[in-house]
Amino acid sequence: MISAVRWHGDAVRIIDQTLLPAEYREIDLRTLDEVAEAIRSLRVRGAPAIGIAAALGLVASLRPFLDEEPAAFRARLERHAATLRTTRPTAVNLAWALERVLRVARDHRDTSNRGPWERMRAEATAILEEDQELCRRIGEAGLELIPDRGVVMTHCNAGALATGGIGTALAPIYLAAERRRVVRVVVTETRPLLQGSRLTAWELQRAGIDVTVISDNAAASTMPRLGVDLVLVGADRITARGDVANKIGTYGLAVLARHHGVPFYVAAPYSTFDFSIESGDRIPIEERSAEEIRRGFGTLTAPEAVPVFSPAFDVTPAELVSAIVTDRGVLRPPYTESLRVLAAGRAASRG
Amino acid sequence: MISAVRWHGDAVRIIDQTLLPAEYREIDLRTLDEVAEAIRSLRVRGAPAIGIAAALGLVASLRPFLDEEPAAFRARLERHAATLRTTRPTAVNLAWALERVLRVARDHRDTSNRGPWERMRAEATAILEEDQELCRRIGEAGLELIPDRGVVMTHCNAGALATGGIGTALAPIYLAAERRRVVRVVVTETRPLLQGSRLTAWELQRAGIDVTVISDNAAASTMPRLGVDLVLVGADRITARGDVANKIGTYGLAVLARHHGVPFYVAAPYSTFDFSIESGDRIPIEERSAEEIRRGFGTLTAPEAVPVFSPAFDVTPAELVSAIVTDRGVLRPPYTESLRVLAAGRAASRG
Repeated sequence: MISAVRWHGDAVRIIDQTLLPAEYREIDLRTLDEVAEAIRSLRVRGAPAIGIAAALGLVASLRPFLDEEPAAFRARLERHAATLRTTRPTAVNLAWALERVLRVARDHRDTSNRGPWERMRAEATAILEEDQELCRRIGEAGLELIPDRGVVMTHCNAGALATGGIGTALAPIYLAAERRRVVRVVVTETRPLLQGSRLTAWELQRAGIDVTVISDNAAASTMPRLGVDLVLVGADRITARGDVANKIGTYGLAVLARHHGVPFYVAAPYSTFDFSIESGDRIPIEERSAEEIRRGFGTLTAPEAVPVFSPAFDVTPAELVSAIVTDRGVLRPPYTESLRVLAAGRAASRG
Repeated sequence: MISAVRWHGDAVRIIDQTLLPAEYREIDLRTLDEVAEAIRSLRVRGAPAIGIAAALGLVASLRPFLDEEPAAFRARLERHAATLRTTRPTAVNLAWALERVLRVARDHRDTSNRGPWERMRAEATAILEEDQELCRRIGEAGLELIPDRGVVMTHCNAGALATGGIGTALAPIYLAAERRRVVRVVVTETRPLLQGSRLTAWELQRAGIDVTVISDNAAASTMPRLGVDLVLVGADRITARGDVANKIGTYGLAVLARHHGVPFYVAAPYSTFDFSIESGDRIPIEERSAEEIRRGFGTLTAPEAVPVFSPAFDVTPAELVSAIVTDRGVLRPPYTESLRVLAAGRAASRG
């Protein structure tokens, strides 16, 4: 299995995803500039993978400064973290992972820098390992949804390239393949940035899994023609009632799945739930640059100055979501109720 | 208004659509090779425009040979027509238009070539002018479907660039604009060949009509977010019961329109009906090259050898089609019934 981000000595080794699928190149990040640039330029992407890269990157970037005065070192680590926090302002995991690493340094003030740094390194490693574990639990939970010889349609990339482990939406697929079950995956290109054809097709093919790429336009007729059994996608944010924000095009697939009687599943860590929001209407939707549409492949594919509407995400209402696969199990609608049962069960098992 | 294909002296003047939207260039076709190459390379495209280009092109290609022996000339014109007929084997209009031009030459055997050639030229011109008239009639019929300040979503290119006139799906939009009604058009990119962003956006912008380009993935959330009032598309073939074959992605838009309570209209000349077929299942669906997906615009956007499923068309069942706008009026479902009434009315008005 590939690793989107991991340790290589004291450097952060990532796969440069901007070069895929034409070239597979691993690069090692050591300095603050290298780490910040890699996140900013989407060399590493996917909310969980970005958080991990920032955590490991913060630790790596401090390595050459262990001999500094402790006060200077502490000022430096706050400075490095602040820089990394601004590389992708919208990714929640980024700030969360940096904060976890900073906290262990703040909590343990030593006379030398070595001790706090070692603890930061251990914390960053823990974030990576926990994500691997979350992915595997999502995979285990979702396995029951994939029939033998099943045809799964997915969108964008919610795979190994987006996480520290085997992905979210792709996790049940990897586990099914690991258990020698036959699975066929149909992946939509996912305009504008083509994460489906560039990344998902690449990582599944590399893992020896049967994958077919379709244009986003072909999704509707592909469902009946290739006998799609289920749609399985990731999520960027899920509200308390189960509305799902995910890559643009997800909502359309959910409508098409409903029309064809195909179940539509979402896979994401439990931490993707935002319990402060009830309705998906309240999720702010980022708009992407018009240039991604007008000059997507380096060629001018629309008139120079034509207006473009390019939302990065859409919201699928809970009513269209057949189940949500989390590291804490599979939730079924109504989600307000199944989340309550889950919380009660965990409280009881703790008591 | 632009002309996709027209006479320029005795040459066929076309807009080279492979260069759009980056460059507007008109080219004149005079020889058989030039005409055949232009159709084969999609410099001129859209079923009606291809038929017209072939008809005018056949006539133009014979111009230098008017002094040949009449028998040699007649053999040559059959040979030229045969070559042109194979340039795009699936387009019905191509064979139909060539046959119309050939027939007038066959019916009038003169001792000189000038007479038959003049009649062929008049027949080719008639095909062009009839198409202009058909487009205008579709526009007039469809005008009632477009509310003032309406937002129309369209797919692919069924406009002036695809016909000899003002298009099919775009015809009511051009007429509404001509009558100073405010219309906003939302056009999907239309992967794989991007006729929506490359061609439809270009011709509407040039005509001063308010147009916004979206990725195909954004269609679902755009319907409610931009307040789309109707979807209006062209058709490649319509069965006797009203199933519609059109560019891949059309069926998906019809499902999305139904889900959002948005009417879904098809505009096409009456000649698009294929009364020999009842169900859309019987329409053969051409598959496009995998390279259009893997290397769409010169860049590798999917793994080199990854399997691709790329149907060029899909079929929208009659149940999802709110009305069909033809040059003979607007047909409403059930189409078998409205077609019968139309035929009876025409028979009565003839009697």
